[in-house]
Amino acid sequence: MTDHKTRKKRARELGLPFPGVTGPANAITDVGGVKVGYKTLIEGDGPLVVGEGPVRTGVTAILPRGHAKQLSPVWAGMENFNGNGELTGSHWVQQAGYFYGPICITNSHSVGAVHEGVIRWVTEKYYEEVKELFWILPVVGETFDGILNDINGFHVRPEHAIEAISSAKSGPIAEGNVGGGTGMRCYAHKGGNGTSSRRLQIGANEYTVGAFVQANFGRLEDLTVLGAPIGRELAAESSTSAANLGAGHGSIIVVIATDIPLGPKQLDRMAKRVTLGLGRTGTPGQQQSGDVFIAFSTAEQTIAPKPSNALVTPTIKDDEEPFDTLTCLVEEQMTPVFEAVVQSTEEAIINAMIAAEDMTGRDGNFLPALDQSRLMTLIKKYAII
Amino acid sequence: MTDHKTRKKRARELGLPFPGVTGPANAITDVGGVKVGYKTLIEGDGPLVVGEGPVRTGVTAILPRGHAKQLSPVWAGMENFNGNGELTGSHWVQQAGYFYGPICITNSHSVGAVHEGVIRWVTEKYYEEVKELFWILPVVGETFDGILNDINGFHVRPEHAIEAISSAKSGPIAEGNVGGGTGMRCYAHKGGNGTSSRRLQIGANEYTVGAFVQANFGRLEDLTVLGAPIGRELAAESSTSAANLGAGHGSIIVVIATDIPLGPKQLDRMAKRVTLGLGRTGTPGQQQSGDVFIAFSTAEQTIAPKPSNALVTPTIKDDEEPFDTLTCLVEEQMTPVFEAVVQSTEEAIINAMIAAEDMTGRDGNFLPALDQSRLMTLIKKYAII
Amino acid sequence: MTDHKTRKKRARELGLPFPGVTGPANAITDVGGVKVGYKTLIEGDGPLVVGEGPVRTGVTAILPRGHAKQLSPVWAGMENFNGNGELTGSHWVQQAGYFYGPICITNSHSVGAVHEGVIRWVTEKYYEEVKELFWILPVVGETFDGILNDINGFHVRPEHAIEAISSAKSGPIAEGNVGGGTGMRCYAHKGGNGTSSRRLQIGANEYTVGAFVQANFGRLEDLTVLGAPIGRELAAESSTSAANLGAGHGSIIVVIATDIPLGPKQLDRMAKRVTLGLGRTGTPGQQQSGDVFIAFSTAEQTIAPKPSNALVTPTIKDDEEPFDTLTCLVEEQMTPVFEAVVQSTEEAIINAMIAAEDMTGRDGNFLPALDQSRLMTLIKKYAII
Amino acid sequence: MTDHKTRKKRARELGLPFPGVTGPANAITDVGGVKVGYKTLIEGDGPLVVGEGPVRTGVTAILPRGHAKQLSPVWAGMENFNGNGELTGSHWVQQAGYFYGPICITNSHSVGAVHEGVIRWVTEKYYEEVKELFWILPVVGETFDGILNDINGFHVRPEHAIEAISSAKSGPIAEGNVGGGTGMRCYAHKGGNGTSSRRLQIGANEYTVGAFVQANFGRLEDLTVLGAPIGRELAAESSTSAANLGAGHGSIIVVIATDIPLGPKQLDRMAKRVTLGLGRTGTPGQQQSGDVFIAFSTAEQTIAPKPSNALVTPTIKDDEEPFDTLTCLVEEQMTPVFEAVVQSTEEAIINAMIAAEDMTGRDGNFLPALDQSRLMTLIKKYAII
Repeated sequence: MTDHKTRKKRARELGLPFPGVTGPANAITDVGGVKVGYKTLIEGDGPLVVGEGPVRTGVTAILPRGHAKQLSPVWAGMENFNGNGELTGSHWVQQAGYFYGPICITNSHSVGAVHEGVIRWVTEKYYEEVKELFWILPVVGETFDGILNDINGFHVRPEHAIEAISSAKSGPIAEGNVGGGTGMRCYAHKGGNGTSSRRLQIGANEYTVGAFVQANFGRLEDLTVLGAPIGRELAAESSTSAANLGAGHGSIIVVIATDIPLGPKQLDRMAKRVTLGLGRTGTPGQQQSGDVFIAFSTAEQTIAPKPSNALVTPTIKDDEEPFDTLTCLVEEQMTPVFEAVVQSTEEAIINAMIAAEDMTGRDGNFLPALDQSRLMTLIKKYAII
Repeated sequence: MTDHKTRKKRARELGLPFPGVTGPANAITDVGGVKVGYKTLIEGDGPLVVGEGPVRTGVTAILPRGHAKQLSPVWAGMENFNGNGELTGSHWVQQAGYFYGPICITNSHSVGAVHEGVIRWVTEKYYEEVKELFWILPVVGETFDGILNDINGFHVRPEHAIEAISSAKSGPIAEGNVGGGTGMRCYAHKGGNGTSSRRLQIGANEYTVGAFVQANFGRLEDLTVLGAPIGRELAAESSTSAANLGAGHGSIIVVIATDIPLGPKQLDRMAKRVTLGLGRTGTPGQQQSGDVFIAFSTAEQTIAPKPSNALVTPTIKDDEEPFDTLTCLVEEQMTPVFEAVVQSTEEAIINAMIAAEDMTGRDGNFLPALDQSRLMTLIKKYAII
Repeated sequence: MTDHKTRKKRARELGLPFPGVTGPANAITDVGGVKVGYKTLIEGDGPLVVGEGPVRTGVTAILPRGHAKQLSPVWAGMENFNGNGELTGSHWVQQAGYFYGPICITNSHSVGAVHEGVIRWVTEKYYEEVKELFWILPVVGETFDGILNDINGFHVRPEHAIEAISSAKSGPIAEGNVGGGTGMRCYAHKGGNGTSSRRLQIGANEYTVGAFVQANFGRLEDLTVLGAPIGRELAAESSTSAANLGAGHGSIIVVIATDIPLGPKQLDRMAKRVTLGLGRTGTPGQQQSGDVFIAFSTAEQTIAPKPSNALVTPTIKDDEEPFDTLTCLVEEQMTPVFEAVVQSTEEAIINAMIAAEDMTGRDGNFLPALDQSRLMTLIKKYAII
Repeated sequence: MTDHKTRKKRARELGLPFPGVTGPANAITDVGGVKVGYKTLIEGDGPLVVGEGPVRTGVTAILPRGHAKQLSPVWAGMENFNGNGELTGSHWVQQAGYFYGPICITNSHSVGAVHEGVIRWVTEKYYEEVKELFWILPVVGETFDGILNDINGFHVRPEHAIEAISSAKSGPIAEGNVGGGTGMRCYAHKGGNGTSSRRLQIGANEYTVGAFVQANFGRLEDLTVLGAPIGRELAAESSTSAANLGAGHGSIIVVIATDIPLGPKQLDRMAKRVTLGLGRTGTPGQQQSGDVFIAFSTAEQTIAPKPSNALVTPTIKDDEEPFDTLTCLVEEQMTPVFEAVVQSTEEAIINAMIAAEDMTGRDGNFLPALDQSRLMTLIKKYAII
């Protein structure tokens, strides 16, 4: 199995008329500099033997500044919509509005291994810059894949995170059963990783907003696609009791990237709009779902908080300017940016479901792919196309 | 003009198939003890003369415990979805999770008058209980009605708030151009106040969740009703440039009431779900919209923080128990409660638009009512019914 | 009675060795452009007759940009340390990080009147700029003066707020029993308004941080001055039962101003340090105290969110740049700024107590000024000087 | 080396007159059921060789319910005073107000290993209860020990966390250079772990509040003990340039435990008071310090959110009551609880410094213990005793 397999048609290619103009890859990687890498772990079949398998899991890495030679932060914001999940590094994002290094997403019980992997990668890659007295607060999110995966077998190791980070690339990226999304479930179907992007004209220039999701949430009956009650229809016609077990448990991590120059509070407010994109797919936001969102801007800023270094208190020389400048979109132009967040989040979730393929995991637990033909029939019934 | 005029058909009566089972009045007043009162101010026509009119405004009062003889608090929670607006009293709701007295909603520049009115009413009505050394932190929200109303004329006075509070009643309540909602605009049509409720079975008993909105937000093209892109259709077929001026500026205040015993953090999480109900009507959450939500539970609790009194530090006698007990829904049962919030918020907004009637205000500015016949034709086109 | 009476010695003049270098007036007005105005209301004596008096109250106005001809916002941040109080306008400060117009502070039940006064003043003064379709979210805080004042008599009217705003001036300012601080109590003594400032060298330039407090909190036994347990000593030696009634009820509003260019999250973090300055005076942060803090920067920024206007959605012409630039202190230089906040807050509280004079109010309730001679004796006992 | 070595005198034994009455061990373990365990790793000397050493680090485990046979949550609250640090599991504590399992504290780059260790321990110990479809959000905090320790050598492994958890015990506990505190620095001296407790009478019963700190923060000149400017004196008299390198970088994690029945928002408010206790030791809250605090109540509550289980949506049978009851302290009695937090936090930090012993780490970096004799001389100079 390769991470980047022959790709099924994506949602737009099937004819789903999502609003807005996408970037060339319709992916978070349309935001200049952003790279995405996966490490997918699929091994074994049959009954669960903790520590042996079956294994259906992995790591996703999103690099805001790719494999840049210098370590520099990105301005960022967050929203904790339903905190029944983990996204490490959030205290400083909430309070100071920036972070360093990649964002990684994995299964709920591999946050620790991936956390260590991120530190290993950053401290090795940027050793000349940071030396020994640097610390980093990795940003690592998770959703639960224990229905298909031996989650307490701890099959994800720090080196898998390093592989995902090292192999990250720009351009079109795989979706569905890849990386951290490998074993995930969404609206009682196979879920996983998905992405989408939007292009915006602001003043004389074009900018991009990209969304990336690890989708592992939702009850079948709630699934809505472009306003059509697809889940209600599917629930009425089929016996989905197996797939719907533990319905609505799960989570979604959403990462929003943009190259629009924005300040930290503007990015917090972007992250808050993810809730509306999530809502367009139908969920009422369930109790057992860890729904945490992060947004960052890759715009080159002359303001660049230096990596924390425990021995050296930076001193400003008399002839140096201890101020930096942050370029920000004027407040009056935020609404189209919010719109891009809502639209790209919605499409990324549906892309994750469209791309995901049938998967059988531990104890023979089976999650079906969303039936594309049935989906399109219903989309027509509701006059969406 | 009376507040409680002959009522137009409501959304469900028109045949809109909103999900879920409503209470008898399909209103926030279905939650036992909750009363709603309006003071509607409509006077004058023609060009704006600041201080003279035209006047198109008012005050809405929502009394969690009606006109109860004793002043007792309700547990409460909040969400600041887009803070470009005011809801006073929020610091203590956020931190301690309760408040006293009515919630009032008015126009943006009458928050002060209504704030004073609430204090006057509470300190008079509960004088025997609170005496002179009591203070209260009134909960007063607002949206902007300056398109139709002489908002800088300060026509709302403290006594209007007292009238709204005093006249509050249970049972069916008026919607649309009433109270604080009198001069409001929603999705380029006449907006205003609206309400809805949901019944839930929890264990052996039935409970109610009610939503009340003052809806003054949204661009025409974004309006979605039960998944159907109504606004896009209406925008395509008509010239709405006048009504759409300043599109999307405005705000929405949402009040959620329930009789389910819940703790403060559970109520915060309910308030967060309002965003999903708001999203179902189509908005991406605009920059210039003050979208602040509050949720409270009227359940009788033996825990009842006493009114603050500046001279008396309460002392607990040796034979008294300094603890109270708070009954809370088990966490595993929260999802249906969230669903009720999402559904009743969505329906309350559509009810506000359906009930509102054409209005001409200052300088002849005109906001049309939503065309019900056109709406229903489109609902059928999209196979919603 | 004039607001600006013959001034008693301030804390430093008494010889209290507060750390740090102050600005010329040792006041928030040392921050360039900041003006402070008071309206003090003192009338009547004897038994409380609600609506008649005695009156011991007022309004304090702090103008970040003085009486500037153009309305422009300041970047701002907040901390809700103990939310048992009111500071209106906070939703937008928390979320977007800026506000317009003055900050006013008054008694708890006059928030409404002052809120209206602020709107009246802003919409009149800036009429040519904002016209009718503008809204503002005034920033109004409060503490409770009902022990001395007929607080339910609503003696503060909107015009008193306008007077305080209009009369604001730069340079040295009065402290103690003035403006909103007129009837306040602090550590069982007469409290009120107080201020202090600190000068900082950052790079080649000097900057100022100023603190302003309305101090109405604390139990006698907790009072600490420069580390010395003054309150414990005073409590041991005297019968203070009358003054200590309702001990610790009350509140403190703290306003921090600076001319250092800072971003909104940096200002939030400054506001958080107020807690440490408050703590240096000894309080453990009591239940019935509304302790809310706001910080703003007056630095001229090219970023300047425009006043909200409900009819006009600003459009950016093709040849305009829809971005502004925000100058921010480099993160590594924040610690001295935090130190200035802590130090100036502590000194402002002690200044308020030192300046306040004996006051008798409603029903003969009496609050003594802090005994300066006794204070200095104790300061020497503890080797502070 | 054993974790529980011959103990130096603690702060009170030296004669420091901290206010308040402590529990029998003057430790967080005075709160019934709470256990603390350490795994201390000290190996090697000389120049840093990443991956080899020297090693000066470890893991501290705090078990709110000891090694209870059943997994049950504790109600909890948090404060992010300066978020330049990590405390995992915080999203759910902030939003729902409870957590499961131990709190662990380690060095900044071992959060991942300890996170995995916590999951391994919980899923093994409670296997019969939770089976395979359970997930947990471990609470793991950190401070930076890279000045003495080979922090990028990743010497802490998951099994070390398990050892710390397994060996946890009640009663008196070691302080200073133990567990997660092994390599820490505080006010330019050797820091580490410290603890203290307070007894409170509430109604007819006695309760306990306990504080536990991992102290790794502060500049020498800021150190204040019981109000006396100890750090200023020490800084004036000695050359501490080596120890003071990178002054003020570091962090503090504070854990507050109590057996008082309290609700989640009350616990949030307790956690906020930690800032005041921290402030009593003199720091202005520095930029490069990750200061995050958590508070929990061990009171037996009939409300007990069940462990999350991904396959089973709990159903309530018709004859079951889907509500639980939460016993809460009446709001009016919170002030003495806040006082206990402030006092025990202050004393726990000083205890950490008093207990810590001289340590030489990587590259010969040396941190001296606080000179007790000099400290007591200065305490007398300032008339504290």
